[in-house]
Parts: sequence; structure tokens; C-alpha cells
Amino acid sequence: MMGTAFGQEQDADYVSMVEAQGDAAYAFDFFTTSMLWTCIAAAMVFIMHLGFATLEAGLTQRKNTVNILFKNVWIISIGLLTYALMGFNTHYPVDSWQIPGILGINGPISGALGGGENDTFAYGGTALAMTAYGDFIFQAMFAATAATIVSGAVAERVKLTSFMIYSTILVAVGYTVAGSWHWGGGWLSSLSTPFKDFAGSTVVHGFGGAAALAAVLILGPRRGKFTAAGVKPILPHNLPLAAIGVFLLFFGWFGFNGGSVLSAAPGPLGLVFVTTALAAAAGALTSIFTAMIVLKKPDLSMALNGILAGLVSITAGADVVGPWQAVIMGAVGGILVVFSIIFFDKIKIDDPVGAISVHGVCGIWGTISLAFFNTEFSIVSQLIGVVGVYAFAFVFSFALFFIIKLIMGVRVDEEEEVAGLDVAEHGAPAYTE
Amino acid sequence: MMGTAFGQEQDADYVSMVEAQGDAAYAFDFFTTSMLWTCIAAAMVFIMHLGFATLEAGLTQRKNTVNILFKNVWIISIGLLTYALMGFNTHYPVDSWQIPGILGINGPISGALGGGENDTFAYGGTALAMTAYGDFIFQAMFAATAATIVSGAVAERVKLTSFMIYSTILVAVGYTVAGSWHWGGGWLSSLSTPFKDFAGSTVVHGFGGAAALAAVLILGPRRGKFTAAGVKPILPHNLPLAAIGVFLLFFGWFGFNGGSVLSAAPGPLGLVFVTTALAAAAGALTSIFTAMIVLKKPDLSMALNGILAGLVSITAGADVVGPWQAVIMGAVGGILVVFSIIFFDKIKIDDPVGAISVHGVCGIWGTISLAFFNTEFSIVSQLIGVVGVYAFAFVFSFALFFIIKLIMGVRVDEEEEVAGLDVAEHGAPAYTE
Amino acid sequence: MMGTAFGQEQDADYVSMVEAQGDAAYAFDFFTTSMLWTCIAAAMVFIMHLGFATLEAGLTQRKNTVNILFKNVWIISIGLLTYALMGFNTHYPVDSWQIPGILGINGPISGALGGGENDTFAYGGTALAMTAYGDFIFQAMFAATAATIVSGAVAERVKLTSFMIYSTILVAVGYTVAGSWHWGGGWLSSLSTPFKDFAGSTVVHGFGGAAALAAVLILGPRRGKFTAAGVKPILPHNLPLAAIGVFLLFFGWFGFNGGSVLSAAPGPLGLVFVTTALAAAAGALTSIFTAMIVLKKPDLSMALNGILAGLVSITAGADVVGPWQAVIMGAVGGILVVFSIIFFDKIKIDDPVGAISVHGVCGIWGTISLAFFNTEFSIVSQLIGVVGVYAFAFVFSFALFFIIKLIMGVRVDEEEEVAGLDVAEHGAPAYTE
Repeated sequence: MMGTAFGQEQDADYVSMVEAQGDAAYAFDFFTTSMLWTCIAAAMVFIMHLGFATLEAGLTQRKNTVNILFKNVWIISIGLLTYALMGFNTHYPVDSWQIPGILGINGPISGALGGGENDTFAYGGTALAMTAYGDFIFQAMFAATAATIVSGAVAERVKLTSFMIYSTILVAVGYTVAGSWHWGGGWLSSLSTPFKDFAGSTVVHGFGGAAALAAVLILGPRRGKFTAAGVKPILPHNLPLAAIGVFLLFFGWFGFNGGSVLSAAPGPLGLVFVTTALAAAAGALTSIFTAMIVLKKPDLSMALNGILAGLVSITAGADVVGPWQAVIMGAVGGILVVFSIIFFDKIKIDDPVGAISVHGVCGIWGTISLAFFNTEFSIVSQLIGVVGVYAFAFVFSFALFFIIKLIMGVRVDEEEEVAGLDVAEHGAPAYTE
Repeated sequence: MMGTAFGQEQDADYVSMVEAQGDAAYAFDFFTTSMLWTCIAAAMVFIMHLGFATLEAGLTQRKNTVNILFKNVWIISIGLLTYALMGFNTHYPVDSWQIPGILGINGPISGALGGGENDTFAYGGTALAMTAYGDFIFQAMFAATAATIVSGAVAERVKLTSFMIYSTILVAVGYTVAGSWHWGGGWLSSLSTPFKDFAGSTVVHGFGGAAALAAVLILGPRRGKFTAAGVKPILPHNLPLAAIGVFLLFFGWFGFNGGSVLSAAPGPLGLVFVTTALAAAAGALTSIFTAMIVLKKPDLSMALNGILAGLVSITAGADVVGPWQAVIMGAVGGILVVFSIIFFDKIKIDDPVGAISVHGVCGIWGTISLAFFNTEFSIVSQLIGVVGVYAFAFVFSFALFFIIKLIMGVRVDEEEEVAGLDVAEHGAPAYTE
Repeated sequence: MMGTAFGQEQDADYVSMVEAQGDAAYAFDFFTTSMLWTCIAAAMVFIMHLGFATLEAGLTQRKNTVNILFKNVWIISIGLLTYALMGFNTHYPVDSWQIPGILGINGPISGALGGGENDTFAYGGTALAMTAYGDFIFQAMFAATAATIVSGAVAERVKLTSFMIYSTILVAVGYTVAGSWHWGGGWLSSLSTPFKDFAGSTVVHGFGGAAALAAVLILGPRRGKFTAAGVKPILPHNLPLAAIGVFLLFFGWFGFNGGSVLSAAPGPLGLVFVTTALAAAAGALTSIFTAMIVLKKPDLSMALNGILAGLVSITAGADVVGPWQAVIMGAVGGILVVFSIIFFDKIKIDDPVGAISVHGVCGIWGTISLAFFNTEFSIVSQLIGVVGVYAFAFVFSFALFFIIKLIMGVRVDEEEEVAGLDVAEHGAPAYTE
């Protein structure tokens, strides 16, 4: 592909290209590696959306599979677009707050978000080793997650168009406003000891879990779940699909947490990979044993939810606790999730995939417990953050879903629910046999 | 694992290793990061083959699933091997053209493709920041794609051995010759304003789509699809499988487009990730709404094809348009694909997975439209490229498939088609129940 | 997100951060890239566990699917945790051997494994360009693989709790002790010509294959497989699931082999990606043709196992052979695997997924054949390594499984086997219809 002369000429070009960075040549290289990691991490977070889609589809009934997949295609797509249209600048209002530290609704990203300094380490400095486009795409992939969490909880009975409108507003406005309080420099980052939530146990998962609870309260349980004769389990239709989902979520979480290092700095990156993996493993094991004791059987769904419980539990503190602390945080999450799922069933709140327990309950645990293990953080600040974000998510979601209910309804009618949403809403079954 | 003394000794070794690069040490680091990205991107493009396999299997009938999976195992394997045997050196003939700029059929890669300068930035200079092996593996992963596109279009009725021969020659000769015109320094790169096709809307996807059209014309529709009573839809047998396929393709496309930056340069890399993601999202949304209007239902298959339509539409220009232009390009792609699929059904061209529409039609749109948005490029050159590559792909595929038809037939007999290829050709069903 | 002034200030911070590395700034950048690769490779090896889970589930019967998925969730979780509890320090005893070069059982990783020099290139020097946490997480992902291999071979009849205990001890003690002989500086690395096993054809795959053989001998075949009337094939219940598994394993293998370069050095990395891919492709093709000749049909399961055979065959020598040698090594592996699977069926050793053939038999071939192609290595040393590791794995596994059999039994009773383990052991089917 090249002769020696050609090669040598190219060498010179190469060196000049990097040397054009002057004294900053080393920094340019570090920045290049970090920005590459941001992009790869964004792709890994993207694949979590396939994880959610298959997990939710697998844990629900066969007749509602197309509907769930469709909602997940919708959410990632509308999530990315609204993040460009208003989410990014609302998440990070910089100087454009309408109510300082609390509300900064802003407009679309600029077509010239890239180019010039925004493509260099001038953009974010050492704290954010990525270009503006890198920052955008990584955060955009996060944004859709909140709505996806709700998708699982309202599955099998929500009206499609209502959910499409709800999820659009939730991801565009609700998530980004709550996120701005912490990541956008808002009031949670101005507490005397700032609220700490590394990759979003509260501002992503907790937000989604609390929003899901509100939506489920309005929506009511699936028909036939809570009968006079007691709770009737509705069996998951495809557990391999659910297992694919959880393994992909685990995989993607390395990008979710690892990318939140916001650079490729070797020390923090290694720590975050280890705490993430060990918390997930611990969550799986404790949920397995808890289910063996409580449910008297080795329950695959619980084991899968245990992995996710461990992951949510470590997400707030993955960079500030050690490996054994991560094991404890994940292990407690794995126990909590089993009891929480049983509890919500008992109080007749029907969450087909356990999303409120996994994301909502473990999000609280993860956010608060990091202050037990790392005394640089304040339990009070952590509590304030949890209460603030969960309350906002709950109220925002409740109000939004309630208004949609008034205007157009949020639930399919009985006939459609019994027939299944696939044929009723989409005119096609997921499987031919 | 090390004491302090050992550590210090190692430090010295480390620094000397990199310092051995002399003035080029910074450049060496940039090159290392870029080559790493090339390798990871190659792996991501590889996973697109699983995406194609599951998408095609999911969108077709249960009784032909083994056959489709088998063809996809075949294509990636033969694609990699023929690329080593002749593809790479035919794709990039350097000085070994038989007909300059048009045809340069060449032999196997050298067993010493690596080593010496080929393992350094002397290999490709600043424009191609990878070693020779990196260049090979990334391009080899692309090569098999063209044949995979055809695989979907001819599904459920093509004779296995005929397809094995056809796909081998298509990927080894057809794809690489067409590719040499653009990426190998051939005539398309010598137009007064050179033809622009960043990652292959035309030279990969368009090639595959045009080849598929030719093959389908020879092959004819599946029995029972176009009856006297009208078009009879043949339902996809497993939509979760199809959804897995599309999400994996979306994921892999970050490697496909992102790797085509040919380095880890932060500016272009971030831009390409953003344009790719936004075009896909826009394609999904417009195909959803178009299908709602035209087909009167929220159609999952169309939504999935809309994502792919957006991706194909941005592939030619992902590095030269801005985010909002990417949204427009993807959005138009998402509309086009719905009408195109309906159109091909209407003219009785049976493409079970919509491959001709997704790759062929959107490939044209993506390649030409980039010149609307970025005036550095010439619409005339873009048209010339599209016509040249599509015409060649169509004629090559038609001639090849026709010759195979004459020699050994290309279609299974009626009994096999009705029974399904899995049992008829492979002696085994895909599922036991 | 920043004004110019802010940007400039950040520039200065940035440069100082990297310049703080002094003369080692170039080396710091190389180390950063290498450590990033280690982390990404670890995530790719993680996804192999999803590959194993889906492959094993797909190749077995519908009624045992939950059981197989559960075992795979168990293995990755217990594998990660025991690697932290004792595996890592037993795998790499450094100065803490009880029997020098042979046995060094050690305790948990330190909570302070990160921080200080362990987060810098002082940790592993040029030979191991990662932090201590990077080293841990990459190796931890490997560890669980051995037990996963056994999981497939004992599928559909093993008692769950017995397997949970067996796999825990196998991965915590057996694998790490055998691994210490080669990677931990033990006796295999002290042979006059040291034993060469790049990424573990023998010490991972061979270990797992030999352990599986021992377990299967104790366990016996599935009921109804070997009848008076001859061998009765038990059909795989879901071949798309199996195909997903193999493609994910292929994808993950780029991390398995590529990460074993232990840095991002561009030369070796490119070579390893190419030899890995070509060996897999060659294995697929030869297994396809071998099956066509021997079994008289294009067999998808064999093609899939051929890919894995090629991958196992190149794993020992991926960094020391050229591309065409890789093709030969993979091609022979693809032939071997077909005959080996037939052979084990003939001698009535029932291995539902072909794990003993894929990992055990091809592991031998790959480990020994590299010495044919690269004369720096000694066939005698390779043989010693194979015999040593396989014998140990077989005896360890046999003894362990036998003791468990005496204490609590290892096989489900006939009624459970007929009913399927999903309902019998887990109280839930994998699919509702």
C-alpha cells in the first residue's frame, strides 16, 4: 500500500499533525483517547435500549410483544431527537436559566456544535475530556433511559398514542430539568456538601422509577392480576429474551458507568469497571438466595432483576467506593429488590417487569448508601437529592399522565387488553405460531 | 504484583519504549489510539452480521429460519476468507490495475502483511491511521455486507448451493471491483469533483441493493405472495428477533461510520456519531408516522426499516453534514422506505425483508442528497457514482445469477418451498415446537 | 458550554495534568490507551457469557431452558466474586506460593488494589499496560469461562444445587491453580522453552473441556439418548438462539484474544484481530464442508461449532502465527470438531452442545500446532503443558464431582428429567406457549 519513500513522507505529515498541538501534544493524545471512550461508551449505552426492549418483552405476555418493542423503538428515537431539539440545552443551561439552579428550558443544539474549540479540549477541560458532540451523544443516550423504565412498568395495558406523548414530554422536559439540578450545575450541586450521584442512581434510574410509580397508580393493574381469589401471577412469555436483555444491560452499564468517568483516566476507569461488575454479581447472588428462602425456588426472573438491582445500587457511587463496599452495596440491592417486588404485589401495584423496585427502590439505596462508605459525602445531601428528584419525577409524571388521561385516556379497553395489544393496536402478532 | 523497585524499573522501560519513537512519540500515541479504534470498529461491524442474520430470520417464515442463519454464517466466513485470498488487493490495487482505474484483480494478502513499516504510521499516514492488518480487518468486515443484503431479498426460495456460489463471487469479485473505483483510487475518485461516499451508502449498501434487485428479478416471488386475489402478506415469524437485528445493526453502524473516519480524530469522530444517531432516529419517526397515515397502523416492521433507512441515508455524508441536515436526510429516508416497500409489492417484486428499499433506494437518496447540503460536492459526480455502481452491481449480479441458473438452477422446487427450506435443505427445523 | 477565556484556562489545566507525568508523558498516553482497551476487552469477554448462555439454551431442549440460563447467571456472578475473594491472588501468587510454581492459594484482593502506583504503569510495566483493577477485571471475566464450558456439557440432567457448588469450586480453585502454572509464573513458564498459550487454548478452553469430560463421565448420558435401537438425536429447541450465541462469542473473542495483547500496541493488536477472524472463518467453512460430506447435509449446528472450533484453535497462537497459518489452524479445527462430535456420540459420551469437542479437542490442536508454524516454540513444551493442564482439570473435576455425588447426588431423578428441569427445579417454564 505504500513504498518506503511514500511512507517516510507520510511520517513527516503525521508528526506535524500532532506537533501542531504545540506544548499540548501530550494532552491532545490523552484527549483523543478520552473522546474515543466517550463515543464507544455512548454506543454501549445505546445497546442498553435493546436490553430494555428484550427484557420487557421477555417478562410480559406473548400477545403484547410487538407493542413493547415498538415503544422501545419510539423511545430511543424520540429521546435522541428531543435531546437535540431541547434536551441538551435544558439539561445543561449554562447561563440560560429561567429560574437559576431550578429551571432552564432551552432550545435546539446549534448546527455548529462541532468545529473550532468545541472539537478540542478547550470544550470541557480536564473535567470533561470530550468534544461538544461527544458530550451530546453520550448524554442523549442516557436521556431516553428514564422513559424506557416507565415503559416496562406500564406494559400490557397502556394506550400506545398516550404513551408516545407521555414519554416524549417526560424525556424532553422532565428528565432534563431534573438532571439540570445535578449535572447541569443546578441547586443540587450547590448544597454545602454537594449531592453526589456519579452516573445517575437517582437522576436517571430513580427518576424513571418514581415516574413509573406515578404512571402505574393512574393506570391501574392489568386485568386478572389481582383477583378476589388472590394475586394471579402472569407468566413471562420468553425468558431467554429476558436473559438477553439483562446481559446486554450489564454489558451496556460498563459504558453507562465507565463513560461517566468523562475521560479515559486509567485509575478511575479501572475502579468503576470493578465496582460495577462486583455489585452486579453480588446483587445476583443475594437475590438468588433470597428468592430460594422466600419463594422456595431458584427463580430466574429474580436472579435477573438481582443483577440490575446491583447495577442500580452502585451507579451513584461507582467511583468513590472500593470493591468490597461495592459488593455490599450490590448485595443489599439484590435482597431489597426481591422484597420490594413482593411488597408491590402485596399492595396491588402492578409492575410487570419490576421496574419500580429495580430502578426506584435500589436507586434510593445506592444514592444514600455511598455516604455510609465514603465520608466525604453527606447523608443529608444525599437524602435531599433523593427526595427532591423522586418527588419531582413523581409529581411531573403524575400530572402529565393524568392530563393525558383526561384528554384522551391512557388505557386500552378491556377487549383490546384481553386480545393483546399486538393485534389490537398494531394489527400484527409478534410470532406466527 | 510489583514492589516499588520493580515498579520503578518498569517505568524506565516504559518510557524508553515510547521514546524510541523519537520526535514521533506524540504521533505514535495518536496512531495507537486510532488503530485501537479501527480494531474495535471492525468488531462492531462484525456484529452487524448477527444483526442481518436475526433481522432476516425474524422477518421471514419460521420454516426457513435455519436456512437464513446458515447463509449468514456462510457469508461472513467466505467474505473474510475471500477478502484475504483476493478481495483486499482487488479492492485496493495500488499499482496493480489491469485496466487503470477500472479493474485490478489481484491475489492474496501477504503472510507478511504485518511487521516492519506496515505496523506503523508509515503504512497509511495521517489519512489512514492504522496498520496494514487494521486496514485489512476493517475492510474485510465491510465486504461481506453486500452479499448479506442480497441474502434477505432472496430468502425463502433460493437454492442453498446456488446462493453459496453466487455470494462467494459477488463478495470476492463484484463488491471489491466496484469498491476499487472509489476507495481503491479508481475512476470515481478521479472525477473533477471526486465522488463522495463516506462509508458506503452507494459502494456498500447501494451495491447490495442493486445486486439484490437483479437476483430477485431472476428468482421471482415466493409462491403464494402475488395471487389472482391480490397481494397476500406473508407474516414475519418472530419480531423480537427482527428487533434484535435492527438494534444490533444500529449499534454496529457506529463502527461502520465511525470507523470510516480512519482515525480517532476527535472532531470528525464526534460529528459522525451524532449524525449517524440522529439520522437513524429521524428515519424511525418518519417511517412510523408515514406508516400510521398510509397503512393506518403503527407498524413495527416499518419502524425497524425506518431506522435502517435513516442509517443508510446518512452513510455517504456522515462526516460532511451537520446534525440538523442529518435529521433531514434520515427523515426523508424513513418516508422513502415505506413508499418504496409498498411500490415494490405493487409491481410484484418480492423482497421479504425490504432490502432493496432500505439499501438500494435510500443509498441513492443518501449519496445524492449530501451534495444538497454541502456544496463542496457535485450533484453530477454523485449521480455518476450512483449510476456507475448501481448499474455495475445490477449487471454483474444479473449475469452471475443467470449463469448459475442455467448451470444448476437458483430456486428450490415447489415441494421444498412449501415444506420450508429448513427441513428440505438442512434436514432440521429451527424450533422443536 | 464554555467561552473562550474559560476554554483557555482549561487548556492550561489540561496540559499541566498530562505534563505532570514529566518525561513519562508519552508513556502515560500509551498507557491510558492500553488500559482503556483492557476495560473494553473485559466488557467484550463479559458478553461471551451471554453467548454461552444463549448457545447452550438454543442447542438443548425447550424444557430445560430456564435451568441453563440460571446456571449461566450463577457462573458469571460467582466467578466474578470468587475471583475477588481468592481467585486473583491464587492465579497470580507472586511471592505467596505454598508449593513454589505449583500451588499458591491466596486470599481476597485488597480494598486498596487501586490507588497510588497500582493505578499507573508502575503496576505492570510494558508487559502489562493496565492498572491493577484493569488486570483484575479482565482476568475475572476469563475465569468464569471454564465453568461455563462444563455447564453446556452437563446440561439437561445435572442437579442445580450440585452444579452450583461444583462450578464455584472449579472456578475459584481449579481454574486459578492451573492458570497460575502458566500465567502466574508457575512451572509451565519455567520450562526450558516456556509453554506458550497466548490467550488460553489450553489453560482456559482445554481446562474447561477436560473438566467437562470428567463431569459427563460421572453424570452419564441424558435418558433416551443412547437406546438399544441406536443413538437418538435430541433436537436443539431454538437455533436462532444458538446462532446469537455463536456470533456473540465470535465478537467477544476479539476481546478475549485482542485483550490478551495486554496493551494497545498496534502491531500485535492488528495481527491478533486478523488471525482470530480468519481462523474462525476457516473453521466455519471446513466444518460446513465436512458435515456436507459426512452427514450429507449443510448442518447449521456444525457450522456454528466450526466457528468456535476455529476460535479455540487460534487462541493459543494468535500472536505468533501469520494469517495463512491461522487459516490452516482454524480449518483443521473445523474438521476435527465434526469428527470429534461424531466420535463422542459413538462412544456414548453425551455432550449436548459439543463442548468437549470444541474446547477440549480443539484446545489440544491449537496449543500444539502453533509449534509447527512458529519454531520459536517447542512441541515438547506444548505437549507437557497440554498433558499437565488437561490431566489436572480432569482429575480435579472428577474428584470434586464425585465427592459431590457421594454427598448429595449430581443428577436429577428420572421424573424431573422427563418433565424438564424448568418446571421441576425452577417452578416456571421458559415460554408460556
